[in-house]
Amino acid sequence: MINVGIAGASGYTGVELVKLISNHPGTKLCSITSNSYKDKTLTQIFPSMRGFQRGFENLTCEKLDADALSKKIDVIFLALPHKVSMEYAPQFLDRGIKVVDLSADYRFKNASTYEAVYQNHSSKHLLEKSVYGLSEIYREQIKGTTLVGNPGCYPTTILLALIPLLKEGLIKTEGIISDSKSGVSGAGRATSLTSHFCEVNESFNAYKIGNHRHTPEINEILTAHSQKKIDITFVPHLLPLTRGMLSTIYVQAILPVSEKEIRQVYESWYGKEFFIRVLDKGMYPAISHVRGTNCCDIGFHVNEETGQIIIISIIDNLLKGAAGQAVQNMNIMFGLEEKDGLDAIMTPI
Amino acid sequence: MINVGIAGASGYTGVELVKLISNHPGTKLCSITSNSYKDKTLTQIFPSMRGFQRGFENLTCEKLDADALSKKIDVIFLALPHKVSMEYAPQFLDRGIKVVDLSADYRFKNASTYEAVYQNHSSKHLLEKSVYGLSEIYREQIKGTTLVGNPGCYPTTILLALIPLLKEGLIKTEGIISDSKSGVSGAGRATSLTSHFCEVNESFNAYKIGNHRHTPEINEILTAHSQKKIDITFVPHLLPLTRGMLSTIYVQAILPVSEKEIRQVYESWYGKEFFIRVLDKGMYPAISHVRGTNCCDIGFHVNEETGQIIIISIIDNLLKGAAGQAVQNMNIMFGLEEKDGLDAIMTPI
Amino acid sequence: MINVGIAGASGYTGVELVKLISNHPGTKLCSITSNSYKDKTLTQIFPSMRGFQRGFENLTCEKLDADALSKKIDVIFLALPHKVSMEYAPQFLDRGIKVVDLSADYRFKNASTYEAVYQNHSSKHLLEKSVYGLSEIYREQIKGTTLVGNPGCYPTTILLALIPLLKEGLIKTEGIISDSKSGVSGAGRATSLTSHFCEVNESFNAYKIGNHRHTPEINEILTAHSQKKIDITFVPHLLPLTRGMLSTIYVQAILPVSEKEIRQVYESWYGKEFFIRVLDKGMYPAISHVRGTNCCDIGFHVNEETGQIIIISIIDNLLKGAAGQAVQNMNIMFGLEEKDGLDAIMTPI
Amino acid sequence: MINVGIAGASGYTGVELVKLISNHPGTKLCSITSNSYKDKTLTQIFPSMRGFQRGFENLTCEKLDADALSKKIDVIFLALPHKVSMEYAPQFLDRGIKVVDLSADYRFKNASTYEAVYQNHSSKHLLEKSVYGLSEIYREQIKGTTLVGNPGCYPTTILLALIPLLKEGLIKTEGIISDSKSGVSGAGRATSLTSHFCEVNESFNAYKIGNHRHTPEINEILTAHSQKKIDITFVPHLLPLTRGMLSTIYVQAILPVSEKEIRQVYESWYGKEFFIRVLDKGMYPAISHVRGTNCCDIGFHVNEETGQIIIISIIDNLLKGAAGQAVQNMNIMFGLEEKDGLDAIMTPI
Repeated sequence: MINVGIAGASGYTGVELVKLISNHPGTKLCSITSNSYKDKTLTQIFPSMRGFQRGFENLTCEKLDADALSKKIDVIFLALPHKVSMEYAPQFLDRGIKVVDLSADYRFKNASTYEAVYQNHSSKHLLEKSVYGLSEIYREQIKGTTLVGNPGCYPTTILLALIPLLKEGLIKTEGIISDSKSGVSGAGRATSLTSHFCEVNESFNAYKIGNHRHTPEINEILTAHSQKKIDITFVPHLLPLTRGMLSTIYVQAILPVSEKEIRQVYESWYGKEFFIRVLDKGMYPAISHVRGTNCCDIGFHVNEETGQIIIISIIDNLLKGAAGQAVQNMNIMFGLEEKDGLDAIMTPI
Repeated sequence: MINVGIAGASGYTGVELVKLISNHPGTKLCSITSNSYKDKTLTQIFPSMRGFQRGFENLTCEKLDADALSKKIDVIFLALPHKVSMEYAPQFLDRGIKVVDLSADYRFKNASTYEAVYQNHSSKHLLEKSVYGLSEIYREQIKGTTLVGNPGCYPTTILLALIPLLKEGLIKTEGIISDSKSGVSGAGRATSLTSHFCEVNESFNAYKIGNHRHTPEINEILTAHSQKKIDITFVPHLLPLTRGMLSTIYVQAILPVSEKEIRQVYESWYGKEFFIRVLDKGMYPAISHVRGTNCCDIGFHVNEETGQIIIISIIDNLLKGAAGQAVQNMNIMFGLEEKDGLDAIMTPI
Repeated sequence: MINVGIAGASGYTGVELVKLISNHPGTKLCSITSNSYKDKTLTQIFPSMRGFQRGFENLTCEKLDADALSKKIDVIFLALPHKVSMEYAPQFLDRGIKVVDLSADYRFKNASTYEAVYQNHSSKHLLEKSVYGLSEIYREQIKGTTLVGNPGCYPTTILLALIPLLKEGLIKTEGIISDSKSGVSGAGRATSLTSHFCEVNESFNAYKIGNHRHTPEINEILTAHSQKKIDITFVPHLLPLTRGMLSTIYVQAILPVSEKEIRQVYESWYGKEFFIRVLDKGMYPAISHVRGTNCCDIGFHVNEETGQIIIISIIDNLLKGAAGQAVQNMNIMFGLEEKDGLDAIMTPI
Repeated sequence: MINVGIAGASGYTGVELVKLISNHPGTKLCSITSNSYKDKTLTQIFPSMRGFQRGFENLTCEKLDADALSKKIDVIFLALPHKVSMEYAPQFLDRGIKVVDLSADYRFKNASTYEAVYQNHSSKHLLEKSVYGLSEIYREQIKGTTLVGNPGCYPTTILLALIPLLKEGLIKTEGIISDSKSGVSGAGRATSLTSHFCEVNESFNAYKIGNHRHTPEINEILTAHSQKKIDITFVPHLLPLTRGMLSTIYVQAILPVSEKEIRQVYESWYGKEFFIRVLDKGMYPAISHVRGTNCCDIGFHVNEETGQIIIISIIDNLLKGAAGQAVQNMNIMFGLEEKDGLDAIMTPI
């Protein structure tokens, strides 16, 4: 039984982690922290959780203290804002605790890229050691690491769709476009006019065109899988729904290419993956298909005349885009079955 | 391992049953039927279910044939329209198969009440034998029966709230009002203008005032727990959301009564129930608290001066209001742990 | 041409007033104020309004200063929080400016009732003079007043439904229940966890049972139309939609009563009213029917055996429940056509 | 006063036309037709319209009969399915009645393009004569025509964004991508599983990639404004909201280009247009900004290093995307003020 701590348990990602760990057959939730709800139980914060006896019910939110926590746990999930994570991750690692960090702080290899869009990095030496937690792609490295930088939600949809095609040398590195759409929970539980019900409901808009912080994250990883530096066009949009994310990705094949060839590539990369589902020809995924699951569904269309490939890649932003992939990474780090705690099916509505 | 069949697996209730049975530790799904999707697999109907290996993935929708099915299963869930259920339930019972019927056909003791609002009943003799599947109230009878008439969703919210107060003689039998609100999935997956997105979205309305078919169902059961014939006022409304139901119930205490006394009654009836959660004073449940669970949450307000008691009772209409309670009843019928397959926690959003 | 000022123009009610006044054939918008957006134009706050040339486009949000404003306007709408209104209303009145106050500050005749649920009242002498702005009921008094206390949204739905029946002596004054449901815009544009998209979306709940501030407002007005003191049961709920409000009201007839008699009463009171639409037997209104209009739709069901009457009363909370009725009141105060600026039809979606 | 007929008045576009014509200062609604609701008044079909006295209230839905209607009207709006329109348009034209057709039947110059994606065209001779009703672009031709083929909703967003840049020779004709998203009302009022509330709500998906019928419409018009044949990539998606449409368009500048140059082009084309609003640098429109208006809002981002231009173009699909632009075209055809009946402002929620 693996002893787990969750820092930042009162946010949307944090409570999703609590759910997953509580339903997981191989873990025990030993500690939760929250700045805003100190000394509260989770059932006081989230009345939906009353009555369930899954191990979290006697815990109260502690102050985040690496010394105290490290005595109780084997692994900590840091569901904290960036910058806060990098204060704590080194302390846990020093005490022999494995870390899955859900902030951006350990996603980059290149500190200067991080610093250009976030802030100074106070533990750059860990970036070398940290593994980017895109489970299906970095599985082998995740097995051996003590520090995972869990991917951003947008990058997860885009990278899972593109890495196979890039790595196989099938697509051009220029002119890649991802038109991406996210549900509101991606922005977290903090209040702001942009998450006010009346402002979001019955609306839809693009935002941060040309300057979203996920762009350099996507570029760094794509470039690592390519011969050439990649600089994609990434346009995020806000959907009037709670959970879910869809990226529509436009790329160009290098040589004449057929639907069948692309399918074979995806098949060889993902055919045995539990959480990546490649759809049949002419089928495109809907957000409802993955809501409540750790799946990434990929559908694609190939224009064999022009060589254009259009890929639709969707996830539940709180699961494969955050808490679900974090648990998948923990499973890999500890040698558990990768789908443990993540393989319950959900119905379509 | 109990072998299970699900008739009507392609509806919203049916697929919810598939989900529950597939995640259940003590059952095996052996057979599914669907009129509209004969020979299709569930993953062809519901792409959300692709890839999950829970036992349903190799099944195709059969024609509903009691002879053929009875060889494979121990229990059948009938998620069928009323009238259709009563054609099949007797055939399964005759072949020694237990039946949980989710239609209205076996909810009534009194055939004439049923016939007044539905149609002629072709197997009246079974009404005596059938047990009303309100799990927490009829648990002992459910244990011994082979036929459960699973309650309607509206009745579940109202009966769980009122039976304790009625049975303890605390409230008047006259003047009971339930102002109830349901999500759209309660009307099923069939298309109609009233479930068209643009007609429901951003709207809300009452319907069938004074003539909803759940009224006689509620009255029959309430009367059975009272000294006097009960005829409640029931007004259903349609909420612009997918899953969930809330009843606001207004009753009058017979004698001066305190919040504490009412709390004690609920406590003594439900204090040990896993799926019924009575809220603290001043707290009222929200539909988000029960979505995805088999819980019924009850909050109440007592006006100690006037004796009026206001009770808020909520469920997920597809779970405690249909498929969840059906599985709970199966657990009881077969002597399993009552919460088996139903105790995974859900997060608030 | 009547010169109009709008205080609090950057809130949801304020901007709705701007829309109405800008489309009104007999008014000119001369001044807008906003604390949060000083010196901004409305198009900077609300990009939806860019380009329209209706008179507001050259205005910037001023500081609320009665001296300065009074030189420019004939009437001021105060779309301000309660307590703030009562600082300013007397100043405008002293300067000869008519006031339509949308806060609770001038809705009560009885200062102690106000003070029990709000705070000390600093201009009690005006309560006598102020007219409750329920247009169809207080039309004659509104004509002659300089100060209107515009009704709350919940009270509007309930009072319009009940006053005719009470005044005609048809219904009991005891046991009146209103189960009311409001869209999110009723809580305004300020951010809070309770208006966070992810908390409201796909949810529904009751709140403030037994202590909502609209209860004494409703009771004071109902009592004024009755022989006896009235104390209704009022339970508000929050709907997952932006605009709209529906009250389901339960009352008891004093003597045996028929659907026809009730219809005649409503007909005689409202048959010639433009904004009150009484529905045919068996028809019940939906929020979509009034969204974007100043209408109050009333449907009702009479149980002729028991004497119970169930009334469904709906409005757009931002229009008949706030800005629309405020403009209707201005029309009455200035002797304009009552429907001026309010009679454009809206389509159902 | 222009006498107007509306064929297909019971659909979402039809009833929107009724609203606009009823609120229009220069028209009189003389005749409405509906197959599904023959002899019904609009208030029987749409209870939201009861009580308004705007001219439609005494009309009943007639059978569509060109002879009978032609005696009463000057212009007919055909809000009919394609193929049905082409049966009737010639009859009205023959009788001297102007026609604004909202189907696809008269949008194409090239009959074979139409026939490839729709069906045989029974009045090809009219295609020459028909004017494509993109008001701001074809204003001069619309003035002189008797037959307008009103544009599709998707094409309207894309064409208004691209024609200025193409015509000025600023962008490449290859590699144009439009990632477009539509609300549910775009699919009309007919019921189907894809417009079922529970299937759309909380979901989002792409559809008809590579074979949507609006693609040839867009291509034909773009090509007409270019030196070269244009074949864009168009991917439509379904948004979980009722009204609104947003296209995110990706194009490549031919030569190095600055944000300022692009702005100047839009400014020179649209600076004086009432219904086209070009946003300031760094601002992007939201669907809520245009809901209920006939506006098309355009925001754009220029990457001056790469020459990529990203344009966000939004409309209310039922207004600028259908009924609103149809009325704008009628205004142009009859020499009225172009914004008559279309210039009421809407508030943001």
